[in-house]
Amino acid sequence: MIDKKHLDYLTSIVEQDNIKTDKAHLIAFCYDATKSRFEPDAVVFPRNEEEISKILKYCNEHKIIIVPRGAGSGFTGGALPSNGGIILSLERHMNKLLEIDMQNMVAVVQPGLINMQLQKAVEEVGLFYPPDPASEEYSTLGGNVSENAGGMRAAKYGITKDYVVALRAVLPNGDIIVAGKKTIKDVAGYNTAGILIASEGTLAVITEITLKLIPKPKFKKTYMGVFPSVNSAMTAVFKSLASGANPVAMEFLDALVIKALKQKFPQISLPEHAGGILIGDVDGSSLADVDEQLNILKNSFGENGSIDFIVALDEEEGKKLWFARRNASPATMVFGTKKLNEDISVPRSKLPEALDEIYKIGEKYGFQVPCFGHAGDGNIHVNVMVKDKNNEKEMSDGHKAIEEIFQLVVDMGGTLSGEHGIGISKAPFMNIAFTEAEMNLFRNIKKAFDPNNILNPFKMGL
Amino acid sequence: MIDKKHLDYLTSIVEQDNIKTDKAHLIAFCYDATKSRFEPDAVVFPRNEEEISKILKYCNEHKIIIVPRGAGSGFTGGALPSNGGIILSLERHMNKLLEIDMQNMVAVVQPGLINMQLQKAVEEVGLFYPPDPASEEYSTLGGNVSENAGGMRAAKYGITKDYVVALRAVLPNGDIIVAGKKTIKDVAGYNTAGILIASEGTLAVITEITLKLIPKPKFKKTYMGVFPSVNSAMTAVFKSLASGANPVAMEFLDALVIKALKQKFPQISLPEHAGGILIGDVDGSSLADVDEQLNILKNSFGENGSIDFIVALDEEEGKKLWFARRNASPATMVFGTKKLNEDISVPRSKLPEALDEIYKIGEKYGFQVPCFGHAGDGNIHVNVMVKDKNNEKEMSDGHKAIEEIFQLVVDMGGTLSGEHGIGISKAPFMNIAFTEAEMNLFRNIKKAFDPNNILNPFKMGL
Repeated sequence: MIDKKHLDYLTSIVEQDNIKTDKAHLIAFCYDATKSRFEPDAVVFPRNEEEISKILKYCNEHKIIIVPRGAGSGFTGGALPSNGGIILSLERHMNKLLEIDMQNMVAVVQPGLINMQLQKAVEEVGLFYPPDPASEEYSTLGGNVSENAGGMRAAKYGITKDYVVALRAVLPNGDIIVAGKKTIKDVAGYNTAGILIASEGTLAVITEITLKLIPKPKFKKTYMGVFPSVNSAMTAVFKSLASGANPVAMEFLDALVIKALKQKFPQISLPEHAGGILIGDVDGSSLADVDEQLNILKNSFGENGSIDFIVALDEEEGKKLWFARRNASPATMVFGTKKLNEDISVPRSKLPEALDEIYKIGEKYGFQVPCFGHAGDGNIHVNVMVKDKNNEKEMSDGHKAIEEIFQLVVDMGGTLSGEHGIGISKAPFMNIAFTEAEMNLFRNIKKAFDPNNILNPFKMGL
Repeated sequence: MIDKKHLDYLTSIVEQDNIKTDKAHLIAFCYDATKSRFEPDAVVFPRNEEEISKILKYCNEHKIIIVPRGAGSGFTGGALPSNGGIILSLERHMNKLLEIDMQNMVAVVQPGLINMQLQKAVEEVGLFYPPDPASEEYSTLGGNVSENAGGMRAAKYGITKDYVVALRAVLPNGDIIVAGKKTIKDVAGYNTAGILIASEGTLAVITEITLKLIPKPKFKKTYMGVFPSVNSAMTAVFKSLASGANPVAMEFLDALVIKALKQKFPQISLPEHAGGILIGDVDGSSLADVDEQLNILKNSFGENGSIDFIVALDEEEGKKLWFARRNASPATMVFGTKKLNEDISVPRSKLPEALDEIYKIGEKYGFQVPCFGHAGDGNIHVNVMVKDKNNEKEMSDGHKAIEEIFQLVVDMGGTLSGEHGIGISKAPFMNIAFTEAEMNLFRNIKKAFDPNNILNPFKMGL
C-alpha cells in the first residue's frame, strides 16, 4: 500500500487521469509473458521526461520502488513489481516516433513505441530497422533496448545493441542524462548507453532512443533446408556460416517441433522424415546476389548431409515456409500442460553437442524437450514439457532438468539467456554463470546508478 | 618515488627482469603521441593475468597508482602516468594471438598484440578483422579496445566496439572477471564489456579479448571523387550514404591538405583545382557488386557537383590514390611548427556547415586549419596550425580556437572525440560536452570499479 501523501504528490505531477490505484488497473499491470503475477501499489503514466524526472526524484527521496514497464511482453518478469512499488508505464504517452532523420539514417523514438510501428514507418521511406523479436507486433522499443532483444534477422543484422546510437535517460535521483549522439563514433566519456542496454530497467528509465537505420534490402527469398537429424542440421549451421554464407535468418525446428506442428496444423506441408529443419531468408541488392547466397547455402547444407533444399517461388510460398517457424512455440503445447522454456545460447560450433546433451537430460527425467529457435546465432529455445503441471514431482524434476541444462550450457561457454534476460525467472541460476567477483561488480554498478535501490530492485539476482 | 618495500613485493611477483626503475626505462615509457611527457616511478611487465591480479590487489591495498599501457601510440595521454605511479606494460609478455576459432569466427588475443598482426593472421585463413586505425602497424588491440579505435574501414564495417565479443579483465581489487562469451548473443548480467570499451584503462586491466571476424571480402577497388569545394564534398558524403552507397571507406582531404601534399611530395599526382577530395575503397563478393557500388557513388557524387571520379585500374594505382590520404597528417606540417589536432565528430548531415564554421574560426584567429579524415562516419581531423610554437600569443589563440571548435561541434550534436578519447588532452573540454549530472554519473561508475582511484586516475576529467 502506498501512503496517501505520496499518491497526492505523484498526482500533482501527472494529474488525476494518469495515476491509477483501482483494482482493475492493478490487475491489468500485474502480468507479463511469464505466469507470475505481482500487483503494483499504483500505476503511473508520465507524459514526458520532466515528469519522469520529478517522479524518480521524489521516489528516490522517499525510497519508493519504481518499476518501468513497456508492453509487459517479457519472458522473465523484468517488468513485474515483484517487490511491490509503482509501475511507471511508458506505453500511454511516451510512445511517439519523434523523427526519421533520412540524412543521418537514424530514427529518434520514445520508449513506448511498438517495434513494428517503427519498422513500418522506416520501410515506407526506403529504410530498414532490422531487430525483429517475435514480439515485434506488441513489444516496445524501450523494452527491446532494456532486454537487448534479438530476433529472426539477427544472424545477418545483429541485435538491438547494434542499432542503439544514443539514449536519453532519467537516473533514479531524477538527473536527466544523454548517452551518445547522432554520430557514428563517440568516444568521449564512459559508454553509458552500453551499460543501459540489457540492464532490464534497473539502472535508469530510458526516455528517448536514437536507432541506426540501414537501406532496405531490395530482394529477398525464403529457403528451407531439410536434414535427417538434429545433429546434421546443427553442424550445417556453423559450417555454412563459417564458409561464408550470410543469410538474414537461420531458424531451426527439431523433429519434435515438426511432429507437434503436423499434429496441431494438419494442413501444414512439412517434409516427411525430417530430423531437423533450417529455415530463413536471404537478401541482397540484386537477384543475382540472392541466388548466389542460396547457392552457397545449398552447397554447404549438402556437404553436411541435407536431404532437401527448398526455395520459395514467391512471397506467398515464403510465408508458408515461415508459418511452421512462427507457430513452433504454441505447437509445442501438444506435449504437455506446462512448458519450462529457456533461451540458452552457445558458441555456434557447440550446437550439435549441446542439443545431443539437452535431449539426454530430457530422457533422464522422462521429458520431451522440443527445441527450436535462432540457430544462426547459437540461440535455441529449449522447452521442457511437463505433462501434468499439478504433479509436484514432475514439476520439481522439470526444474532440475532446467538447472542441468543451464550448467551444461555454461560449461560449454554459453550463456543463460540469448535474448530474454534474467529478471526474476532466471535469477536463481545467476550463480551458475557468474562468479562472486562478477556478481559483486554488478552490485557495485547497480549502486553507482541507484544507491537507494528504488529502481526495479532485486532483479537479475542482485 | 616508489617505496623500496613495494618494489620488493612487486619484484617477487614478476621477477627481477620484469620490473624496471632505471632512467632509460622511465624515459622510454614516459611518452605517447601527444607532446606530453610524464615519467613513471617504475615499469612492470606482467607475464600473465594472475600476476596482474596480484599487482593490482597489492597496489589497491597500498593506494599505488597503476597506469596500463599498450604501445603508447595514443593521441590524448591516456597511457601517460600524469599523476605518477607504475606503468603496467602489456606489450612484452601479454602480446599473443591465442586462438583463431574458424568455426565460431572469432579470434582470442592478449591485449598487447599489435592490430596488424591480427589482421594478417586472420586474412591468411580467409577471415577479416575490419578495424584499421591509422596506427594499425604498431598500436595494440588492448589500446584499440580501451579507446574504441576507429579506422578507415569504419564507414562500412564499424569500429572496435562492433567487434568485441568478450573480455577478460582484472579489477583494481585484483578480482578477475569475464565479460561476455563466444556467443553472438548474451543478455545475462550487466554488459560490463560495453562499459570497459572506451574506458581508457580507468576501470579495469583488460587481459584477454575475443573479437568477431568476418569473411574476407573477395573484391576491392579504390575510387577518388574530386569536388570544386569542401562544401560540395561534404554534402556528397551524407547524400551518397543516405542514398544507399556503402563504401568501405570515404576519406576526405580539403584544399589545404591537397596543397600541403603537393608541396611536400612534388611527384604526387593530385587533381588541379580540387576544393575537396573523397577517397576510399568499395568491396564486394563479386566484381559486379563492386562495379555497382562504384556506379552508385559516381552518380551520387555527380548529383552533388563532383568534377571528376577516378577509379584505380589495379591495386598499384589504388595505392597511389591512397598515398595522398595516408600522408595527409605529416604533410600538414608545411603550415606551421605546431599542430593542434582534434578528432571531432558530427552527425554526417552537419559536415558541410561544421567545416564552413571551422574555417571561419581559423580565419578569425589567423590560422590555417587543414582538415582531413573519416568523413564517411562524420569524424574529421581538424588541425589548427601554429606558425611559431614559441609565440605565446599565437599558442594561446590556438587553444582558444580549439575551444570554439569544440563548442561549435557540441552545439551541432557532435562529440569531442570520434576515436582518440579524452585522456588528459581533452579533459579540460569535458564540461562543454557533459552536464554536471553526466560527470557525476561517470564519477560514480569509476568508483564502482575503482573505489581507491588507483587505476589510471584523474583521466577523462574525472
